[in-house]
Amino acid sequence: MAQNIYDDAGFFAEYSRLPRSIDGLRAAPEWPSLRAMLPDLHGKRVVDLGCGFGWFCRWARESGAAHILGIDVSEKMLARAIEETRDAAITYVRSDLETLELPVAAFDVAYSSLAFHYIEDFRGLAANIRQALVENGRLIFSVEHPIYTAPSEPTFVRNSAGRATWPLDDYLDEGPRSTDWLAKRVIKHHRTLATYLNALVDARFSILCIDEWGPTPEHIAAHPDWADDHQRPPFLLMSARR
Amino acid sequence: MAQNIYDDAGFFAEYSRLPRSIDGLRAAPEWPSLRAMLPDLHGKRVVDLGCGFGWFCRWARESGAAHILGIDVSEKMLARAIEETRDAAITYVRSDLETLELPVAAFDVAYSSLAFHYIEDFRGLAANIRQALVENGRLIFSVEHPIYTAPSEPTFVRNSAGRATWPLDDYLDEGPRSTDWLAKRVIKHHRTLATYLNALVDARFSILCIDEWGPTPEHIAAHPDWADDHQRPPFLLMSARR
Repeated sequence: MAQNIYDDAGFFAEYSRLPRSIDGLRAAPEWPSLRAMLPDLHGKRVVDLGCGFGWFCRWARESGAAHILGIDVSEKMLARAIEETRDAAITYVRSDLETLELPVAAFDVAYSSLAFHYIEDFRGLAANIRQALVENGRLIFSVEHPIYTAPSEPTFVRNSAGRATWPLDDYLDEGPRSTDWLAKRVIKHHRTLATYLNALVDARFSILCIDEWGPTPEHIAAHPDWADDHQRPPFLLMSARR
Repeated sequence: MAQNIYDDAGFFAEYSRLPRSIDGLRAAPEWPSLRAMLPDLHGKRVVDLGCGFGWFCRWARESGAAHILGIDVSEKMLARAIEETRDAAITYVRSDLETLELPVAAFDVAYSSLAFHYIEDFRGLAANIRQALVENGRLIFSVEHPIYTAPSEPTFVRNSAGRATWPLDDYLDEGPRSTDWLAKRVIKHHRTLATYLNALVDARFSILCIDEWGPTPEHIAAHPDWADDHQRPPFLLMSARR
């Protein structure tokens, strides 16, 4: 069972203050890249795995999706999602992605933003998603990049030239990582990029595209504090077809 | 045009002293993983892109391949390959992979070991290889891992706990890297893992498997000086199907 840190009162309060919690998708710098991977949603059945406050569910509906199922393990997040959604075509369900059983061939598009790195058994989840998609259905998701989740001390270090370097170690040692991010002892599951990709191939997905997302010079000009994130990608985006 | 460092007398002398130059495939620790990606070679037509001393060409022939074409830009390496090969089914050709034009649908298997990171235009090379393969043909190759090629100062740094960390920076800045490896100013071309993968997908390859290769605990027990390489993968292996 995945750690449900989002229902920790302190974490939830901190998370609720992040720009992406206040302003939604437009405050997520990787969103345009993730959106570019999505097919046309008109008339489509969509599942959002780790839907949080429901920003993507509402966007998908505005983009023409016929029905959207939002799933999240956090009671607090779903409460706000339900409160902010007035649309019978959007359904929210509370469930742990680690144990959830999705219905067979029920969706055209499976989407997930920054949720799968909380899941230990990605291989099982990939198989679960595959059987829930129709033939030719799409899986589009983002996770924290394995380069980002790997290190034993995940903090930039200045080198002799004063440049920010990311002290990579433990990359090949998969497993839980406990970090202090908004709260103490948040558990994320590190796995390599190869493991993400091979799990999808083994579940008989065709890989369409990956994006090792980092801020562009334009982003950095607007947000100088993002400069270090250009040294190594914070996010990994993937698109695959059943 | 790719830098032809292998014909530099000093580099060649140093390279010739490496275990893999003396003992061939069995001295290359990543070879078993690369071999595991290969299909049965019996009766197959194989091209080895960057064949060096011809170790793989001879192994492929012993493994039943019907014909093997070995291509390399280095005159010195090909001279030794020819000298050590007595088999009419193996042909060597001197050519720069950057400008080489491969024949159409002429091969069942394209193989390359640690050569493509010398090539600037991987996208062009991927398209070139694809048209040279028959339908369902395979491309199996290794390169230096992008995590390995990226940094401005590619040397392990001990952290406060005394652990070896790899000071990753510049990962998203693709382009040439000049390193002092066996000789001064060896030029390798850094590109992200996403660029390798997306170039293959865009050339209409199906990705079968990737391996972010690093030494296992068993390797390290036998070669304690390889321990640091476990912190971040030195090699990236990929397998794709036309």
